Amino acid sequence: MPDAIPADSVGIVETQKVRFDEPLMLACGRELPGFDLVYESYGELNATGSNAVLICHALSGHHHAAGYHSMDERKPGWWDECIGPGKPIDTDRFFVVSLNNIGGCHGSTGPTSINPETGKPWGPDFPPLRARDWVHSQVRLADHLGIDCWAAIIGGSLGGMQAMRWSLEYPDRLKHCVVIAAAMKLSAQNLAFNELARQAIVSDPAFADGRYMDNDAIPAQGLALARMVGHITYLSDEAMANKFGRDLRSGSFELGEADSVEFQVQSYLRYQGSQFSGSFDANTYILMTRALDYFDLAREYDNDPVKAFAHARCSFFVASFSTDWRFSPARSREIVDALIEADRPVTYVEIEADEGHDAFLMPIPRYLDVFSAYMRRVGEGC
Amino acid sequence: MPDAIPADSVGIVETQKVRFDEPLMLACGRELPGFDLVYESYGELNATGSNAVLICHALSGHHHAAGYHSMDERKPGWWDECIGPGKPIDTDRFFVVSLNNIGGCHGSTGPTSINPETGKPWGPDFPPLRARDWVHSQVRLADHLGIDCWAAIIGGSLGGMQAMRWSLEYPDRLKHCVVIAAAMKLSAQNLAFNELARQAIVSDPAFADGRYMDNDAIPAQGLALARMVGHITYLSDEAMANKFGRDLRSGSFELGEADSVEFQVQSYLRYQGSQFSGSFDANTYILMTRALDYFDLAREYDNDPVKAFAHARCSFFVASFSTDWRFSPARSREIVDALIEADRPVTYVEIEADEGHDAFLMPIPRYLDVFSAYMRRVGEGC
Repeated sequence: MPDAIPADSVGIVETQKVRFDEPLMLACGRELPGFDLVYESYGELNATGSNAVLICHALSGHHHAAGYHSMDERKPGWWDECIGPGKPIDTDRFFVVSLNNIGGCHGSTGPTSINPETGKPWGPDFPPLRARDWVHSQVRLADHLGIDCWAAIIGGSLGGMQAMRWSLEYPDRLKHCVVIAAAMKLSAQNLAFNELARQAIVSDPAFADGRYMDNDAIPAQGLALARMVGHITYLSDEAMANKFGRDLRSGSFELGEADSVEFQVQSYLRYQGSQFSGSFDANTYILMTRALDYFDLAREYDNDPVKAFAHARCSFFVASFSTDWRFSPARSREIVDALIEADRPVTYVEIEADEGHDAFLMPIPRYLDVFSAYMRRVGEGC
Repeated sequence: MPDAIPADSVGIVETQKVRFDEPLMLACGRELPGFDLVYESYGELNATGSNAVLICHALSGHHHAAGYHSMDERKPGWWDECIGPGKPIDTDRFFVVSLNNIGGCHGSTGPTSINPETGKPWGPDFPPLRARDWVHSQVRLADHLGIDCWAAIIGGSLGGMQAMRWSLEYPDRLKHCVVIAAAMKLSAQNLAFNELARQAIVSDPAFADGRYMDNDAIPAQGLALARMVGHITYLSDEAMANKFGRDLRSGSFELGEADSVEFQVQSYLRYQGSQFSGSFDANTYILMTRALDYFDLAREYDNDPVKAFAHARCSFFVASFSTDWRFSPARSREIVDALIEADRPVTYVEIEADEGHDAFLMPIPRYLDVFSAYMRRVGEGC
C-alpha cells in the first residue's frame, strides 16, 4: 500500500468492462458466442485518436498494468516501472490501453466464465486459443474505443508475440510494434518446460480433468509446481545466485527431515507457488501455455519470416536481455535479421542485465533510457 | 538384446553383494546398523592390487555400469561407452569396480530395505546421507576387496563430487581423481530444480509422506514429473533442438484437446517419465537430490577450496562439456583454478558437445580420446 501516490504514477485507476455480442470465429474453427473484455486505460486519447498505445500481456498477466486500484493495494500494476508520467510509456503523451485477454482469469471471458450453452463454467471446454484470436478480439476493443490505428502495440514475452501477429494481420492498424524478450516461436526446450508445467497441473488429482470448479476445488499443488517451473525459467542462474546464493534459512546446515527447508531459494519457490495457486485458474494456465507452444510466426508464410514480415507496414523496436535464457538474445536477433531482410525499419537493443527473462519488468537504467527514446519518436509521429 | 556380445564389451557380468555388519556412523549423527553393497567388477586385479579403479555413480545411477547381465538384456550398463577392452577405462589394464550407493534402490541398503528395528522397510525413516557417507561406505568395499589404494576414482556429475570428497577424506587411498561434469557445490538454480523435483514427488497423494510401500503404491506421477525435470536439465537447448525441434507427431498442427500431444518432445518426456516411475524409488530420489544440495566441497575448510584441495595428494583430471548448463564449464574451471592454486597436478579439458550434461555418457570422439590418454597415464603408474 502506498503512503501517498508517487508523482510518476498514473494514480488510482478503474477497471472497465465491455461486452461484445457478435460471435468471434476462432483459429481452431470454433466460435466464441460473444465475450467480455476487461481493460484499463491511462492518459487521455487525443482529438484525432492518434496517440493510443496497446499493451499486450504475457502468460500470467492481466489488464492491471499500472497504478493502484485503491490506497489499500500493496503493489501497483505489473508494468508500473514502464507506464506513467515521464516513464517510457509516457501517460502525459499517450493514451495507454491494457486488457485481460480472452481465455484469461481476471475478468475477461475465459474458462471460469459461464458457458451460455450449459449455464455452467466453461472449464476445460473453453475453446483452445491462438495468439491471433487475441489479436482479433483486441481489434473489437480498438473499434469500441474509436482507435483506427495504434501509435504502438507493445508486449513482452507472449505479449511481444501478439504484437508481431498484429503487424501481420492488421498492418494498417499500428505504426510501431514493440517486441521485448520474445521469439518467433518456442524452442524444444521452451516446449518441454511448458509440457512439464501442464503435466504438473493435470496430474494433480484435484484437477479432475479440468472440472475442478464442479467440485469447488482447485489443483493447488499442480499450479504451485507449474509456477515454480515458471519462476526458475524467468530468472537467470546469475539472478538466483545474487538473490539467494546458497543462503540458509537457519545456520545449521543439518540434514533434517526429508521435507525440511534449509535453503532460502526453497522457501522462495514454495511461497511463490502457493501464492499463485490461490490466484490463477488452472485451465487458463493450460490454455495460455498451449497458445505459446503453437505460436509460430511464419508457419503460414512457408516458414519464412522474411515473407511474413513483408506484410508488415509498421516500424519495429526489438529488445532482449543478456541473461534471458527463456527467450535469449539469439531469438530476438532472428526477428531483427528477418525484419532487415524484409526491409522493415527496426531498432534493436540488447540490454546487459542479470535478471533473466524477468528483466523486461525491471527498472534497468539503460533499458528505460532506450525504451523512452524510442517511445519519444513514436510520440512525435502521433 | 545383443545378437552377439561386441568385441569391446566386458561381456556377461554378474552382480555381487557384500554385507558389512559393523555400524556406519553417518554425517547426520545417526548410525546405520550394518549395510549391504551390491557391486560389479570388470577386468582382473593385479598381484599388487595397484590397478583398481572405482566408478562412482550419479543421481539415478547404479552398479551396472558395463556389459550385459544376460543375452536378453536390451541395453548394456550405463557407462558401457567408456568401460571395456580398449575403451578409456580399459578393462585389459584395470580392475574396475562399480557399486550401488547406500540409500540407493538397486540392491544396496536403502529406503526400500528392511529396517532391522521395525522389520518393515525404512521408507522415509532411512537416514539422510551426505556424499562423505558414500565415501566411508566405499572404503569398506575397498578393504573387502583388498585394495589399499585406488589407481583412480572416477565419477561424472554427483559421482565426480564423491571422487573429490575421497581425495580429501582419504588422500592416501587414491592416485588419480577423475571429475567429469561436476561442481564443488550446486548453484541456486541447481537447488531450485532439485526442489521442484522433490515437491513434485511429495505433492503426489500416493507419496503418503514417504510411506507408499505400506500402501503397496508408488507416487508414479510425482516421479514422472521429477524425471521430466531431470531430462530437460540434462539436455542442452541445442540437443533438444537437434533431437526434436518443433517436430509434430501428426502433421495437423491443430489445437486439440487440452491434454493432447502434438510435439515430439512432449511424447518423449511423457515416455521417459513413465518409464522412470516404474523403476526408481521415490524416497531414494529425495535422498539423492538432498545429498547433492548439501554437497559443499570447501564448507569445512573455511569455504576456501584451495585450503580444501591442499589436503589432497592425488592427481586430477577434470572434464566439462560446452553446452552443459547444469554443471557448466565455468563450474569445472573453478575446480581447476583451486587445484592449481593448491599446487595439485591437474589436467583439464573442455569438450565441444551439443549434448548438454548428458554428454559425459556419450561416445564423443575427442572426449574418448582425451579420457583414454589420461587413463593410459594412470595405467602406466600402476
